[in-house]
This record gives sequence, C-alpha cells and structure tokens, in this order.
Amino acid sequence: MTAEPYAKSTIEAYLARLSSAEPEPGGGSAAALVGAMAAALVSMVSNLTLGRDKYMGVQEQMAEIKMNAEFALARLADLITTDALAYGLVAQAMKLPKGTPEENKARGAALQGALVDATEVPLEIAETAAEVARLALPAAELGNASAASDAAVAAVLADAAAQAAALNVKINLGWIEDPGFAGEVWSRVETVLCETAHLRDTILSVTYAKL
Amino acid sequence: MTAEPYAKSTIEAYLARLSSAEPEPGGGSAAALVGAMAAALVSMVSNLTLGRDKYMGVQEQMAEIKMNAEFALARLADLITTDALAYGLVAQAMKLPKGTPEENKARGAALQGALVDATEVPLEIAETAAEVARLALPAAELGNASAASDAAVAAVLADAAAQAAALNVKINLGWIEDPGFAGEVWSRVETVLCETAHLRDTILSVTYAKL
Repeated sequence: MTAEPYAKSTIEAYLARLSSAEPEPGGGSAAALVGAMAAALVSMVSNLTLGRDKYMGVQEQMAEIKMNAEFALARLADLITTDALAYGLVAQAMKLPKGTPEENKARGAALQGALVDATEVPLEIAETAAEVARLALPAAELGNASAASDAAVAAVLADAAAQAAALNVKINLGWIEDPGFAGEVWSRVETVLCETAHLRDTILSVTYAKL
Repeated sequence: MTAEPYAKSTIEAYLARLSSAEPEPGGGSAAALVGAMAAALVSMVSNLTLGRDKYMGVQEQMAEIKMNAEFALARLADLITTDALAYGLVAQAMKLPKGTPEENKARGAALQGALVDATEVPLEIAETAAEVARLALPAAELGNASAASDAAVAAVLADAAAQAAALNVKINLGWIEDPGFAGEVWSRVETVLCETAHLRDTILSVTYAKL
C-alpha cells in the first residue's frame, strides 16, 4: 500500500498497480472506483439540469439528487483505498506465527477480526452503489434529456460495482467462522443485487425508449 | 478538454470533471476506463499465475492471456481520452454557422463526419471490452484460484463497459443520416452485448461455485 490515498494517484498508476501481482488493490477497490464513477455521472446529470428553464419543475428534486450523489461519490472515492487497506490487514494477520497452540489461537482471533472488517468494506461499497442506482432512476426520468445516456451508464456502472463488491464479500465469507454474521451479510448483499439489477434494467428500458 | 491525456490525471480530478456540467468526459470515456480496469484485472490474474509451480500446465496460455490483456489495457486507456476528443469535435461542428444554405450544407457535412468518428470510438470500446471478457473466461477457469474473484470482477466490468459504450453508440446513431452505417454498427454492438452478457453469466457461475 502506498502512503497516499489511491484517489490522489494518476489513473495510469492505479491501472498499472491493479494489473500487477501486488496483493492490492484488487477487485474490491476497483468496485469502489466504478461505483464512484456511477455517482459522478448522476451528479453530472443533475448539474446539467439545475438552473435550466426547461426543467424548472424538477429543480428541488435535482438539487437533492445532486447532494446525495456527491455524498456517495466522496464515500466511494475513500473506499477505493479503504478496501485495499482492509485487505492488507488480512494478509498481515495470515503471516502471524502459528507454532504453538497460543500463537495459533492469537493468529486465528486476529485473522477473524481482520476478515470481518475486510467483509464490511465491500458490503458498504455494494450498499452505497445501490443508493447510486436509486438516484440514477429519477436522474434518467426527470433529468436533462441530452444527458439521458449518462444516467443510464450510471445505472449500469452502479450495478457492476455492486456485483463486483458482492464477489469480494463472498470470498471473505468463506473464511469467516461466525455463521450468524455470514448469513446476515449475505442476505444484505442479495437484497442489493436484486435491487441494482432491477434498477439497471428499468433505467436501460426508459433510456433506450428515448434515444 | 485538458491538454494532457486523462490517464495522466489523478482519479480525484477525473471524477470531479466527470461529475461537472463540462461537456466531457461523459459516459463513453467512463466506459473506456471501466474496460481498462477489467483488462488490468485479467492481467493481474495472469501475473499471479505465471511462474507458480501449481500452475505449470497453463503457463503458455497464461502468457498469451497476459499479452492480450496488456494490449487491450493500453488501447482502452487511450480511448478514455479519444472518446472525449471525438465528442468535443461533434460539439464544435454543432456551433458552425447555419445562416445560408451553403453554411447549412457545410455544417451538416462536418457534423455527419464528426458523428461517424464519435460513433466509431465507443464501438471500438465495446469490441475491445468483449475481447477482455473473452480473456476473463480462461483466466477464471485456469488462473490462480486465490484470484478467482478478480477474474469474475473483470468479466462483470467488461460487460458493464460494453453496455455503457453501447449507449454512447446509440445516442450518436440517432443523429446519423446514413442508415447503412447505422445498421451495420448497431448489429456489431448487439453481437458484442450478447457475447459479454453470456461470458459474464458463465464466469460468475464458474466463480461462485469455487468461492
């Protein structure tokens, strides 16, 4: 992990590090970046709608969409790095000594703690991506028609971010020993995936009908 | 358009500009970046498989996957900027004078030319994303099992990149006056979308069965 957040690195440097054999960033961090791009596109649609005479009837709603999209964008941009850090702590715990029963027990406890944290990060990415998908619907329906395809791209990317985050939740759940935690987390992920897939299909239909 | 390619800008700056009311970058540029991330993840899986004893039987195939993924990554990273430039030329042509019949005719010809170029860019993004999705399948099936979720995220992102690029092809086709060109382009896009959706579903099944 570099000392500075990934949002401060160039796109080129991020892609190079993603493609390398370095342990992070991986798919979870990529999910957060794709979610942030979806939020940015919803924000763009609201910015192209606010203050336009033709869209006077939806100004209040667009201002609220803009505010929520910017909030999600800032959170997802942070999660690009948070996911990489959380994965790094799992890798660290795995390297703890396991020679004696005491060491084994301490390592197991540290690993389970790190895995729970590393699972909660992609869960948050998935749930924030679902919020972005919910914002993309009114953006596509009520926002500036000349940016309709951008609202639809936002929905496609929000769904992809949720699907990508779900894979990263799942890979961690395989190692988590608390079935109650695992069951509750996966049920939340399934709710997200059902919702984002439905929103994506709805928004694509609405948009292709306009193009 | 800034003077330097978007790959050289920070993630933060790119997200800020994507979210703004500036005409570009838009959904097409975002599609290229998401496709580049998918290619980077395929490359990562190959890097985590090459040189590992456990995967000696697939070294040659992985080396070829790595080479093709890196080629696609470089192309898609360029297309992040190419799409924005092509869109800028359409916006420029739209601003040409249309006072006299001659001006109208010249503006129409310039606009049609710029639209054809601006359509071919997201078409190339979609077709390159399909190539990445094709590489993700053997990466998921034969690559390092500990990176299985990354190969699946690559498939999800490649499909999303193709869907996002398709929307940007479609919005341009609405303005193109040559029905032969429009028909041929859209048929190629439909082939891509069918293939990437199928590859995504197949790779997700293969991967969830392993996690």
